[in-house]
Amino acid sequence: MTNRQDIFDEQARLQKIKAAKDQARANRQGNEKGLYLLFTGLGKGKTSSAMNLVYRHLAHDMRVAVVQFIKNDSAFPDGDRIMLEKLKAQGFPISIDTLGGGFTWETQDPDRDQRMAEQAWQAAMTLITDPDISLVVLDELHIALKKARLDLAPVLAGIQSRPAHCHVASTGRYAPQALIDVADLVTEMTRIKHPISAGIPAQMGIEY
Amino acid sequence: MTNRQDIFDEQARLQKIKAAKDQARANRQGNEKGLYLLFTGLGKGKTSSAMNLVYRHLAHDMRVAVVQFIKNDSAFPDGDRIMLEKLKAQGFPISIDTLGGGFTWETQDPDRDQRMAEQAWQAAMTLITDPDISLVVLDELHIALKKARLDLAPVLAGIQSRPAHCHVASTGRYAPQALIDVADLVTEMTRIKHPISAGIPAQMGIEY
Repeated sequence: MTNRQDIFDEQARLQKIKAAKDQARANRQGNEKGLYLLFTGLGKGKTSSAMNLVYRHLAHDMRVAVVQFIKNDSAFPDGDRIMLEKLKAQGFPISIDTLGGGFTWETQDPDRDQRMAEQAWQAAMTLITDPDISLVVLDELHIALKKARLDLAPVLAGIQSRPAHCHVASTGRYAPQALIDVADLVTEMTRIKHPISAGIPAQMGIEY
Repeated sequence: MTNRQDIFDEQARLQKIKAAKDQARANRQGNEKGLYLLFTGLGKGKTSSAMNLVYRHLAHDMRVAVVQFIKNDSAFPDGDRIMLEKLKAQGFPISIDTLGGGFTWETQDPDRDQRMAEQAWQAAMTLITDPDISLVVLDELHIALKKARLDLAPVLAGIQSRPAHCHVASTGRYAPQALIDVADLVTEMTRIKHPISAGIPAQMGIEY
């Protein structure tokens, strides 16, 4: 700031922005609802974004459930599951179910993967309709739909029939357009750079 | 699967994929390094992706530090900070510093915001050079660079001089190209849909 007029102009500008933001925020009050949030794309951050919804819920003592449609720990320990189980053991209100099979190239058994994905979806519906649960994360649901041949129609109907105050989040590459169409929030994680392309392996604390 | 030949073909295909993935994974071993990860874009998931790196580190008992360059709780309680403080109180190895000012339109004091951003950066450098810390998250660093006029040159040099096994992650809209250029991983959160556009307010457990 070089002189008093500049300071005055800048303060007037910031006051206008604040007034507009405060008004917009006031206008949105009362429109709270249970959201369906969808994270897809090829970049890093899909499961992580859904997991941090879990931690934000736990910050406020709200009950959460996570259903993992793909078992991630064939090659590495699953840091997400390890952390949730640590917290559950300390009394945080978490349920965590790893009911899907592994990636099809790891399990080498597509029919079994399909049966396990169907079981995972049944568990998910029980959690979504539980009135005490505020958030249900369906981790790698999109992969189960594409690779484990989980049927889309009941999934679409189930997510749309969620209770009014239940948030649902789904993750994974290749989200079907029908889910994108009914979601309240969709972020595509766009991969600009990834260390795997530079020959750097998956590392503890980063990928798992 | 309709007949035995189909099953055989599918199994051969899956075995090929697995062999290729196993070989690629073996080739990457030994190339571990401290990464610089950058999350930007207009969509939801930037801070969340960085926060889940924190929780994955804690899953494996690795020490982490978070520096918040923007104080987020002027309008809402900050669920990320609340959760980290809960865990810190339970003995998890976390340091959490909220050293930046608020958004400029909230604080109405740009010069003070700039001084606070500089103090936050000094604290960040102390953490980055601490050999016991595996991950330093610089939350909303990009906003501090753009809105609080934090100087880019020392930030760029500091991130590039990080110890060999220290991961650094920065978040926020408007990442400068100079940081994107030196990052190992960059995800742009592309906003396909956001509930605020439908008049739905920020909700506990989702935005905060």
